[in-house]
Amino acid sequence: MTEALTEAAAAEGIADYVEFRMDGATHPLDALDEYDGTLPLIVSNRPEWAGGTAGESDRLETLAAAAAFDAVEMVDVELRTIRECEWLRDELREHDVELIVSHYDRQSTPQKSELLQIVSECGEYGDVAKLVVSAEEKSDSLALLQSFNAASERGVRVTGYALGEIGRHTRVIGVFYGASIAYAPVVTDERSPNDIDLRKLSNLLEWVSSAR
Amino acid sequence: MTEALTEAAAAEGIADYVEFRMDGATHPLDALDEYDGTLPLIVSNRPEWAGGTAGESDRLETLAAAAAFDAVEMVDVELRTIRECEWLRDELREHDVELIVSHYDRQSTPQKSELLQIVSECGEYGDVAKLVVSAEEKSDSLALLQSFNAASERGVRVTGYALGEIGRHTRVIGVFYGASIAYAPVVTDERSPNDIDLRKLSNLLEWVSSAR
Repeated sequence: MTEALTEAAAAEGIADYVEFRMDGATHPLDALDEYDGTLPLIVSNRPEWAGGTAGESDRLETLAAAAAFDAVEMVDVELRTIRECEWLRDELREHDVELIVSHYDRQSTPQKSELLQIVSECGEYGDVAKLVVSAEEKSDSLALLQSFNAASERGVRVTGYALGEIGRHTRVIGVFYGASIAYAPVVTDERSPNDIDLRKLSNLLEWVSSAR
Repeated sequence: MTEALTEAAAAEGIADYVEFRMDGATHPLDALDEYDGTLPLIVSNRPEWAGGTAGESDRLETLAAAAAFDAVEMVDVELRTIRECEWLRDELREHDVELIVSHYDRQSTPQKSELLQIVSECGEYGDVAKLVVSAEEKSDSLALLQSFNAASERGVRVTGYALGEIGRHTRVIGVFYGASIAYAPVVTDERSPNDIDLRKLSNLLEWVSSAR
């Protein structure tokens, strides 16, 4: 079902990439081998501490192997992982992929100055810094938008959004303030009530880009 | 034509008030006398220095007289006017109207701290502080959103938006950050390319309120 939906989204021109969460697949490398879809892939392989299900054994080896596939254009790795793992940095550099370095904060939203420091560190290791934070106050969402704006003014590519109801609009307005990738689920899931449906996100982004 | 459109908007439930710019009418008090529309009115009578066409003679007397009409629920006066004109303050207080005190900056966007000072002063004289500023940088729009958020956290009612293409989204997202009134033209005018059509604004606000 997912394949049909991503092909439809590609045909409509409302998606540019598909993110493949390798930790959600039983045989992720086989799945990559069989992939013949239109859209290029972003791959990630999240461990439990980053909201995923991948065990630590072979997690990074599998991710590094994914970078060799033609369809894979971007690899997304957690900041904590890439900071500690020199061989992975070297390995990924050998392939023609862009690197998204992600920082997830599922408890709170760091202050703007700390967010900018995280963006800088992500930018040292990768091509795109991804910030996902938890907004408890509206000022948290504003801090994220400010950091997107400040980073993109410095020429650093950023993306991300604030979790929670209060952060929901950042998935759209973040793009106005400099986020270079917007995220929407191919199939909405009621366990993620703040995800914005792909078609709706696409309409809202059209409005945001006409507001630029 | 305008009357038919505002009645249609009232019937659809997509507008709560109509703003009547008295300086745009030849006989504004006669027009108020004849008004039998469904929506309550916000009246303003802008002088040239605030983007309007009213001459100074009788401008404030006409505005004060408007406050006596049943249909008029809110009167909008510029901060500079109300600051200098004690009799107008006294006169407006005698009527059952709410007072919007407006600050327009057609050159730039003051810093956040200055915006908050302006909001405080507007709030001293009136019930709602309205800020209209000119956004030249994205950080100007963020400063406005921050001041809306800070003011509404303090219980001060605010409204307004940032002029310019860069500010356009604040007409929608401002409501998320605390703006209590959103503005849309009844009839779009190509001289104001950053106004958002009423129906579109209403749809976008529905999305923003579902994102709260």
